[in-house]
Amino acid sequence: MRKVSIIGVGQTPFGNLSDRTLKDIIFEAGNNAIEDSKVKRKDIEELFVGNFDSSQFNNQNHIAPFTATTLGLDGIACTHFEGACASSGTALRHAIINVASGMTDVVMVMGIEKMNTLSTSEITTVLSQAGDYEEEGVAGLTFPSVFSLIACRHMYEYGTTREQIAQVAVKNHSNGMKNPIAHMKKEVSMEDVLNGKMVAEPLGLFDCSLISDGAAALIICASEKAEEFSKEPVDVIGYGQGSDIFTIYCKEDLTTLHAAVNASKQAYQMANIGPEDIDLAEVHDCFTIAEIVAIEDLGFVKKGEGGPYTEAGHTSLTGEKPINTSGGLKSKGHPVGATGVAQVIEIVNQLRGNCGDRQVPGAKIGLTHNVGGNGATCTVHIMQGRA
Amino acid sequence: MRKVSIIGVGQTPFGNLSDRTLKDIIFEAGNNAIEDSKVKRKDIEELFVGNFDSSQFNNQNHIAPFTATTLGLDGIACTHFEGACASSGTALRHAIINVASGMTDVVMVMGIEKMNTLSTSEITTVLSQAGDYEEEGVAGLTFPSVFSLIACRHMYEYGTTREQIAQVAVKNHSNGMKNPIAHMKKEVSMEDVLNGKMVAEPLGLFDCSLISDGAAALIICASEKAEEFSKEPVDVIGYGQGSDIFTIYCKEDLTTLHAAVNASKQAYQMANIGPEDIDLAEVHDCFTIAEIVAIEDLGFVKKGEGGPYTEAGHTSLTGEKPINTSGGLKSKGHPVGATGVAQVIEIVNQLRGNCGDRQVPGAKIGLTHNVGGNGATCTVHIMQGRA
Repeated sequence: MRKVSIIGVGQTPFGNLSDRTLKDIIFEAGNNAIEDSKVKRKDIEELFVGNFDSSQFNNQNHIAPFTATTLGLDGIACTHFEGACASSGTALRHAIINVASGMTDVVMVMGIEKMNTLSTSEITTVLSQAGDYEEEGVAGLTFPSVFSLIACRHMYEYGTTREQIAQVAVKNHSNGMKNPIAHMKKEVSMEDVLNGKMVAEPLGLFDCSLISDGAAALIICASEKAEEFSKEPVDVIGYGQGSDIFTIYCKEDLTTLHAAVNASKQAYQMANIGPEDIDLAEVHDCFTIAEIVAIEDLGFVKKGEGGPYTEAGHTSLTGEKPINTSGGLKSKGHPVGATGVAQVIEIVNQLRGNCGDRQVPGAKIGLTHNVGGNGATCTVHIMQGRA
Repeated sequence: MRKVSIIGVGQTPFGNLSDRTLKDIIFEAGNNAIEDSKVKRKDIEELFVGNFDSSQFNNQNHIAPFTATTLGLDGIACTHFEGACASSGTALRHAIINVASGMTDVVMVMGIEKMNTLSTSEITTVLSQAGDYEEEGVAGLTFPSVFSLIACRHMYEYGTTREQIAQVAVKNHSNGMKNPIAHMKKEVSMEDVLNGKMVAEPLGLFDCSLISDGAAALIICASEKAEEFSKEPVDVIGYGQGSDIFTIYCKEDLTTLHAAVNASKQAYQMANIGPEDIDLAEVHDCFTIAEIVAIEDLGFVKKGEGGPYTEAGHTSLTGEKPINTSGGLKSKGHPVGATGVAQVIEIVNQLRGNCGDRQVPGAKIGLTHNVGGNGATCTVHIMQGRA
């Protein structure tokens, strides 16, 4: 299979974009990605759209040709991928396989979600449908409670402290302050997090990611053609996708997301590198505890050491393994279907050296980790800059 | 890219399955497909799920790992594809590319929809979200009215008669009588159709497909390995996917679905054959007029000649080009996300010579045509038997 590269990135600001239409944010992200590359619309052969639930959020389904028409790309094959909060991670993986196979040379990947159309309670219900409705949803197991179970068990098994978990929020909000497109540009202190309004013990308000609107787009192409279309292509050197058992009550171990372990193993093997070779990563911090679990599942630290590693500052912007330099889902925001692509955009910008105040000096290899629902879907992508 | 073959098929009966759970029908279809092949669960490397809107119909989203866990396939990469009524057609196409690329050798493709959970009016609203909600849905342009516009224009442009359109229903119900899994096994006469309760002029009740529940599954693999897993593999010799402008009011010509024309051109080119080489086809008769447009778009007849060709009996079971031997969406039923895969199952069964009373003698090459929404998505697959 051929090598694949990213040649264009574009996104909207993340936030409450209630004053804009779905088409408006799709156009901004897609057009920015096209303009970031030297690709013309006629070069784009296929469209891959990640979206969780525009049918319930926006009364609009069949979102792939909707997106194509909005961008003036109607006619080409266009497909919608749903994998809960990993929707655009799965769209990207299938897009890469399409180009790698030789079916196409140049395609667009778009992630979209416009959630601030319903009440918070309604949004929580829609999101909970990413878990098993019949067996767990009806019992009230929404995502804050899933991750509260994970946090409690992690604390019990490994002695992880409330402060270590809270440190993820403090760090990510600090990073988000440096990201112009972040939803919640607000420093939060350890005290703020610990005293946050309780959501699902031990997780408080500042342990939860945001309900955001936004769109994010990539143009990818066969690596052999990348320099025709971009001065600064970024190569995809590994990718993987895994799943896990769908019901929480059937999981053998709450503190590991097997989908993430499997997806990262596939990606490391393809890239022929290990976790120690990753300079920085965007991981799926839908809740603070999820970042601690993620850096363990990805092999950056041993299982159980995520808390102390975070507390010691190793995942901060100036640490040995910067995590979520964008601010993460926690501060940058989490328009769920857009998140997977937006994570990749942060890594591309870091590898191009375009991140200003939050730039990780000399970053060469970056990883993204995009999780769906209760962990039943995970995609991992590893990118390398050419600079 | 490698050649790909179908080595296992399985499905549930189509109908109102209100007494069964989503998991129940998924298990039946998937397990039947596994048992139809010699594949073991451990051989299945990836899962491709087509579903339109289980989030609204069943309160269940993130349907791909839900399906994997239901079938005992958790762990593998699994992805949900949505393309309105062409959802499982798009899932199949991406599955074929995955296997053809060498990523995997054996995968499962599953189509699912369980719609009879809402009122007819609510279902119509959910389906209408496959069109442009903001510009056309709010104005009341549901799918019966879209296809009524197409029918009126076809009658105006080409002199197509009400009786020619109605003949599609008469023929497909006659075929459906011979299909054990069909939803509505009921002969309808020309008089029945012409006197049917008006839905959207000129289309009456018997011009509309059914609101059905059902699941349908395929196992596909690299052709070079097909005989390890099946005594009667069927080869996929061509496939294509296209899109069209999303809003009806922007279409230049209401009587042609450009997505179908483009998808079939891709498929014919790949198979290196023409429409004259197709022995039989399952086409997307969501409304009677859609079948007439389909046989024109696929090149079986010239534009405008679909009506007289149908009236002359050429598309009947004993005609020169049998269309919808299964009964089609009209009589077999239309659980929207399952339809694309179910069409392929009918062709596989015909090419294997397993269709009993509705068998087309000597069928060698068959085609499926799966349309999403107002025609903004279409996939076409061409299959050839080895007998």
